[in-house]
Amino acid sequence: MPLNETVLGRMVGEIVLSRHPNYREGQIVHGMLGWQEYAISDGGTNIENYGPGITVVDPDLAPISTALGIMGMPGATAYFAVTNIANPKPGEIVLVSSAAGAVGSTIGQIVKVYGCRVYGLAGSQEKVDFLTSQLGFDGALNYRASRDLATDIGRLCPDGIDIYFDLVGGEMRHAVLEHLRPFARIPLVGFISQVNDRPPSLPDPTRVLMAKRVRMEGLIVYDHVGRMDEFRSQMSHWIKTGKVRPVETIVEGFERLPRAFIEMLQGKNVGKYLVRV
Amino acid sequence: MPLNETVLGRMVGEIVLSRHPNYREGQIVHGMLGWQEYAISDGGTNIENYGPGITVVDPDLAPISTALGIMGMPGATAYFAVTNIANPKPGEIVLVSSAAGAVGSTIGQIVKVYGCRVYGLAGSQEKVDFLTSQLGFDGALNYRASRDLATDIGRLCPDGIDIYFDLVGGEMRHAVLEHLRPFARIPLVGFISQVNDRPPSLPDPTRVLMAKRVRMEGLIVYDHVGRMDEFRSQMSHWIKTGKVRPVETIVEGFERLPRAFIEMLQGKNVGKYLVRV
Repeated sequence: MPLNETVLGRMVGEIVLSRHPNYREGQIVHGMLGWQEYAISDGGTNIENYGPGITVVDPDLAPISTALGIMGMPGATAYFAVTNIANPKPGEIVLVSSAAGAVGSTIGQIVKVYGCRVYGLAGSQEKVDFLTSQLGFDGALNYRASRDLATDIGRLCPDGIDIYFDLVGGEMRHAVLEHLRPFARIPLVGFISQVNDRPPSLPDPTRVLMAKRVRMEGLIVYDHVGRMDEFRSQMSHWIKTGKVRPVETIVEGFERLPRAFIEMLQGKNVGKYLVRV
Repeated sequence: MPLNETVLGRMVGEIVLSRHPNYREGQIVHGMLGWQEYAISDGGTNIENYGPGITVVDPDLAPISTALGIMGMPGATAYFAVTNIANPKPGEIVLVSSAAGAVGSTIGQIVKVYGCRVYGLAGSQEKVDFLTSQLGFDGALNYRASRDLATDIGRLCPDGIDIYFDLVGGEMRHAVLEHLRPFARIPLVGFISQVNDRPPSLPDPTRVLMAKRVRMEGLIVYDHVGRMDEFRSQMSHWIKTGKVRPVETIVEGFERLPRAFIEMLQGKNVGKYLVRV
């Protein structure tokens, strides 16, 4: 019954035994409880989900698995990147990197609600097909198959780019720069490409950022915990009305966790990668 | 009587002969009329001052030479960088690159009005002394004498930096990055260091920009022409009340213009470099 997520050891599940006055058996909770089948919590609440705290999940808002994905931190990251930094306007052209991941797939669907044209960069043809056939993306590009990413991005977005959601950093953003339109925005919402590496050296983008009046801004989701209720209510509404669809890869069996973690880092999953244990 | 500026051939002077119904002899006007002692204008107005247009200068607002400096585009650039992008709060720590130049010296003085602590980077000990003794900077650093700019910036601003006004780009901004405080802003207001060069390669700053939620944003002054009246009125008030002081280097004689242009590029002037012809 409980689900584990692969990145930080978050877990969602049912309380099977409670000696805490605030919790009762049968409640659904989530917390950063590690890769476990059963976990013990002191019942403390911790909004950032670090430590042994737990928070209650409202199963009426969305399927409980989404507490680790689109209704949780990945979804909130997407929501605040769109609403707090990007401020998309109808008709604007949006490019999302890591577009088939938990955050990117949510961003793409939200900006469609805002009336934008949305394009995605993803790491396989399978993901590209998924984005365009299942999630309403107007186009997508398998960057691993590209020999000249800047040229291919220009073909994908011939009218330029108003908003580039940067979940990757590095060479990919550099390839995007020349296609930015005036007053473009670049929310920086991840840097998975650099987790294990020294940052690459790239030509200083000052001139293009200035000439095009680009705004580039970093986001950390935990700065916005005060708006989590607004986020959950809005996202639940979008899910229930079919505007936004949770994207998850769920595999079965605790023993699959280490392999799922490695596959997640290799980018083999679509959406949030969860293990049902 | 007329003054020429060294960058773009702007000129301010008195109308000595008019056959245009909107202008009369004795009026002070400025325009991008080239390096000349006398110039002919068709009387068209062109807010960007490209082409043969002229605009009237109100000598009651400030000395007419400032139409090319603090009351003109350099001052407007400083004003909009502060009010539109930086949004300084009292007590915040500000670092200005190219701080003894026309734009930087104005930025530093404006943010003092906002109650900030302000530090400057400049290219000579003479400029450093000028900034701290004459313009109210809380500290300044001669970057040309620094062997380790990142370390020296850390010594200059041991409590970190909330706003870095980037008039230079490149290595200098890279040296600033590690000293940024959370939610720092970097208005990009110039790139004189790269006018003639290919941009340098630098380590991708994505990680630090994201971790510190930095906002970096390009400014082009001409986007803000709708607020020029507000700017001129505010700047005139600051000048008249002694809050902000025009910084100019004025030399005499038309034949000095080419040398002044070269000296400006070499960074030998303080403030706006003007030639009285």
